[in-house]
Amino acid sequence: MSLITPRTLRGFRDYLPEVMMPRERCMEIAREVFRSFGFAPIDTPALEYLEVLTGKGSDETDRQLYQFTDQGNRQVGMRFDLTVPFARFAAQHINELGTPFKRYHIAPVWRGEKSQAGRYREFIQCDFDTIGTQSVAADIETPLVIHSLMLALGFEAFKIHINDRRVLTGLLEHLGIAEHSVLVLRALDKLAKIGADKVAQEMQDTAGVSESQARAVLALAEIDVDADDLYAQLSKITGENATAALGIERLQQMREGLAAAGVPASRVKLDLTIARGLDYYTGVIFETFLDALPSIGSVCSGGRYDNLAELFTKQHLPGVGASLGLDRLLAAMEQLEMLPQVRTPAPVFIPYFDKGQLNAYLQLAAIVRAAGIGVEVFPEPKKLGQQLKYADGRGFTLALIAGNQEFEAGTCQVKDLRDKSTTDVQWSADQPEPLLDAIRSKLKS
Amino acid sequence: MSLITPRTLRGFRDYLPEVMMPRERCMEIAREVFRSFGFAPIDTPALEYLEVLTGKGSDETDRQLYQFTDQGNRQVGMRFDLTVPFARFAAQHINELGTPFKRYHIAPVWRGEKSQAGRYREFIQCDFDTIGTQSVAADIETPLVIHSLMLALGFEAFKIHINDRRVLTGLLEHLGIAEHSVLVLRALDKLAKIGADKVAQEMQDTAGVSESQARAVLALAEIDVDADDLYAQLSKITGENATAALGIERLQQMREGLAAAGVPASRVKLDLTIARGLDYYTGVIFETFLDALPSIGSVCSGGRYDNLAELFTKQHLPGVGASLGLDRLLAAMEQLEMLPQVRTPAPVFIPYFDKGQLNAYLQLAAIVRAAGIGVEVFPEPKKLGQQLKYADGRGFTLALIAGNQEFEAGTCQVKDLRDKSTTDVQWSADQPEPLLDAIRSKLKS
Repeated sequence: MSLITPRTLRGFRDYLPEVMMPRERCMEIAREVFRSFGFAPIDTPALEYLEVLTGKGSDETDRQLYQFTDQGNRQVGMRFDLTVPFARFAAQHINELGTPFKRYHIAPVWRGEKSQAGRYREFIQCDFDTIGTQSVAADIETPLVIHSLMLALGFEAFKIHINDRRVLTGLLEHLGIAEHSVLVLRALDKLAKIGADKVAQEMQDTAGVSESQARAVLALAEIDVDADDLYAQLSKITGENATAALGIERLQQMREGLAAAGVPASRVKLDLTIARGLDYYTGVIFETFLDALPSIGSVCSGGRYDNLAELFTKQHLPGVGASLGLDRLLAAMEQLEMLPQVRTPAPVFIPYFDKGQLNAYLQLAAIVRAAGIGVEVFPEPKKLGQQLKYADGRGFTLALIAGNQEFEAGTCQVKDLRDKSTTDVQWSADQPEPLLDAIRSKLKS
Repeated sequence: MSLITPRTLRGFRDYLPEVMMPRERCMEIAREVFRSFGFAPIDTPALEYLEVLTGKGSDETDRQLYQFTDQGNRQVGMRFDLTVPFARFAAQHINELGTPFKRYHIAPVWRGEKSQAGRYREFIQCDFDTIGTQSVAADIETPLVIHSLMLALGFEAFKIHINDRRVLTGLLEHLGIAEHSVLVLRALDKLAKIGADKVAQEMQDTAGVSESQARAVLALAEIDVDADDLYAQLSKITGENATAALGIERLQQMREGLAAAGVPASRVKLDLTIARGLDYYTGVIFETFLDALPSIGSVCSGGRYDNLAELFTKQHLPGVGASLGLDRLLAAMEQLEMLPQVRTPAPVFIPYFDKGQLNAYLQLAAIVRAAGIGVEVFPEPKKLGQQLKYADGRGFTLALIAGNQEFEAGTCQVKDLRDKSTTDVQWSADQPEPLLDAIRSKLKS
């Protein structure tokens, strides 16, 4: 029989334990944070009717769509994001769900992109949204969730950049270049990367605005958003445009609300120059940058949109939300050495080296596990040295070493696999506490 | 603009919060239990090269496969189970992983089955396996994990049925009908459902065995597995067949090991008649039945197999594992009224009815959340009654009610939404403990 070559498709990848464990941990933390704000989980199918998916993103997303004809001769596609399925979901179930409706959704999506380094054709999205309200409370809550998420994931030095699209819209209206907004904002979004001069040039080249118009847009970057005369500064360039004023008012409410909820001012930055490119945002927008790795880009972004489900229902469903960039965050955590280097989810290892004592090992493991401590028993009675080598390779923290003599004497050696120190402990099935205490104290150290 | 009808594909479904919350909880419990035994998570792509997937199950699975040609002109398919991808994964990475290797994998799979009630084309599988060892320790550990899983999910009255395929194989060898084993075992698997007479008839009709041969197989059901003379009883029908004896020996080791690890005898049943139909098992096999709902079928099944990855590698990878039937278990939990009827993951609700106090509400919520208690703030300053109606509909447990006067007086009303009882509590941002204590005590009751 000829063997089939075991391989994954280009652009796809397997997750081995040492990579999957921190991924799973991050997703668990995200779920806990979402829930603590009252966001509820939903799920939708990986496959949708093709008509639900096409024409929702750009021509590019349509090209990247995995699509085919199924056994029932239906045209179907694999979801390429979680927003379009959520729009379909909301339109279909909103009467049952009621508003406001807060949901999170953590699930894989697929895009047949051209393969390139660091880009995958299958990746996890991690979205949360509040729909059915235009309230500032929901706007404030979005960066509150981002802030809690980042802290829970172990980050302390980060900044949430906040803008309101209406400041930009108002300014472009005032300058009479609203019809060029897509190209102007696309250029503006590159400010941090390429600098003001190149952005001004691009605005003139692609959007056809004048140099003075481009410079007027770039003047947003010069505004001191922390000064008391913010309105006055803004009026100088927007000429008291009402839309821009609404944007600035919302930004100030957001800053106050975030402070009231305990978010340090050092982690919030009003940034009138972020635009979130081609996206469909209409109000507040967010990006989150790590102080230590700004170049990695925003790790959590989102904003307010006018009407989630307009392609599917006449019901008006405004909303606000954001998406955690799981892969980018994990890459950052690895780069910042925030990830433990282990390949086992259990901290304790029991070598099974005394062939006649299997039941005693199983009992010992059950006692440790009942105390809430994960423990693996090696399945074969190999030599102790060989088993300890396995334990080191996997990254176990402790080994509980006992053979026939120790079981008879009611003792056990607790070996710290990090510094190789050992402690002998007296224990029995009826009185396991001394052993459990020794394990707990070593695991804590 | 004409609207697109919001609908899911036939055989697929959306999960709304009230259904998704218990699903997520069950998967979290499963992960915790798997990890506590040292099983590590992995993930594999939803899409595989078609050649990896075809010809691995039956003709039926091939027909049900969602397959297509991708943008790079590759023949690809969506995984229909987690076992075939695990075989491919193991063959590809085993040198890096080392053995024994213990993994769990919780992920969706897709089968384009004929639609029928209760059968879906997308469902979650929840598998755990130990590969690279033939040890009895790994065999014993599998029902140990099942036992811990069931307890952690809240079940107490269940039985894990255990058999060893070698008992059946040995008996069929002794009877000279080994070549008919597939059809004989397929009939035998129906014993609990259709009774001995019909099984005997089916064995004669489909496998062409004689009535006395059929009755000899069915005599397995008559053996008293708890009696001291188990070997003697068995020898009477297997004629001291060595394979059958190995099977019985393993079953007795398993029973002892499970007892040593604290599994009550009442939850373990040696059952010489379970066969797990057409599966590829070669040693121990498991099925798990709920005492209260035996008709729902086995909720957790598995067994030992000879060589996981033989289609992909020459390396010999024997293993043992099982699969938790998540959908079946959730259906059982619903039928047994084990699921809480809530649509919010946060227990506490803060109505925002005093328009001028948004920041105070946000601060209050942050304080409660910092104590580890989930809390949702209603996003719009609607009438209190309307907000409390929303809270009742979602299933919140408590509401924290305060307006301008209460915030000034440093008080807050803690309202139990179940019995409508209220308590007024004095609190401040510096001294939130009285409020937190009142919330905790009401949540516990």
